[in-house]
Amino acid sequence: MAGPSISPEIDRLIALLARLPGLGPRSARRAALHLLKAPDKLMTPLASAMQHAAESIETCSVCANVDSSNPCNVCTAPGRDKRSICVLQDVSDLWAMERAGAFRGTYHVLGGTLSALDGIRPEDLNIASLIRRVGTGEVDEVVLAMNATVDGQTTAHYITEHLEKTGVKITRLSHGVPIGGELDFLDDGTIAAAMKSRRAV
Amino acid sequence: MAGPSISPEIDRLIALLARLPGLGPRSARRAALHLLKAPDKLMTPLASAMQHAAESIETCSVCANVDSSNPCNVCTAPGRDKRSICVLQDVSDLWAMERAGAFRGTYHVLGGTLSALDGIRPEDLNIASLIRRVGTGEVDEVVLAMNATVDGQTTAHYITEHLEKTGVKITRLSHGVPIGGELDFLDDGTIAAAMKSRRAV
Repeated sequence: MAGPSISPEIDRLIALLARLPGLGPRSARRAALHLLKAPDKLMTPLASAMQHAAESIETCSVCANVDSSNPCNVCTAPGRDKRSICVLQDVSDLWAMERAGAFRGTYHVLGGTLSALDGIRPEDLNIASLIRRVGTGEVDEVVLAMNATVDGQTTAHYITEHLEKTGVKITRLSHGVPIGGELDFLDDGTIAAAMKSRRAV
Repeated sequence: MAGPSISPEIDRLIALLARLPGLGPRSARRAALHLLKAPDKLMTPLASAMQHAAESIETCSVCANVDSSNPCNVCTAPGRDKRSICVLQDVSDLWAMERAGAFRGTYHVLGGTLSALDGIRPEDLNIASLIRRVGTGEVDEVVLAMNATVDGQTTAHYITEHLEKTGVKITRLSHGVPIGGELDFLDDGTIAAAMKSRRAV
């Protein structure tokens, strides 16, 4: 990848870096060179951080979060409301929710969305385990926080149908104008949704 | 970085990944998640490739290339013309030159360009070692292949001045229309340079 007469160690490093999302062949070469120029300050620490993470991180058997303990830190935290479950597409959404600090319940990571196009069926996602968790009767509210995309909403609809008979309260995130958002840059659907659910000041 | 109640192992991985060029906080989180989802297929191999590279790669004492041997594979290759030296700004330029396969001589990596703005002086670059290499009398031609930027050309000028008295032949890459380039998308300077050095068909 870096050319002939380039050492195979460097070629292998570039090839593996190029498999990271967001890095193409050119940026992988740039990243490799950056690492090679800082072997002690960056490359070795990053290598050991990866090795350490690969050995210690597992998937939570309750909510499918990734963490160094199983069940994860969120599921076992004493201060969190276990009667409220926020359902998310992916671990990255869980991280986003935690950064926002807007939810003090527990989570359930589906691992994707239903998709006819990509052949993702309900049994490919962590839906059965969600239905089991709700079925114990120890849950009061399920917040559906899938992305506001067609696949996300299809998945929310599917889950709603399967949870309705349990009598659990099902909610979803509100739609509207993002904080700091300008109307002129917003799509029509968002403006319409914000108008429809307008509130008294 | 990923939020509270996220394991410190993951936080550390994200923080280190964010120090790679081309990765901001968001893409570092995405890369970390991608790694965490493929511990055996990507994270462990990448960790060991980095560890291996950190231990085996050194800077060539002749040309400042990075390689697993010192002097590097290019400097020691029997088929390469040691009487011809191509001077480059960085190792990434050496890789680009090797990918193009357009040069069968040896290289000299400066490690940057002179820059009044950034305070880069001649003694901060591998210029003295280049002058020493040429001074042995074992070099016929020096190809200056710095970038066609102000700093690159200033550096080329500086090196030319210091090598002129040795009587070595000094050349530079030609300017012109890139292969596949469209005139309409080219800057005026390049078009003017291409016109000035036009050749009979």
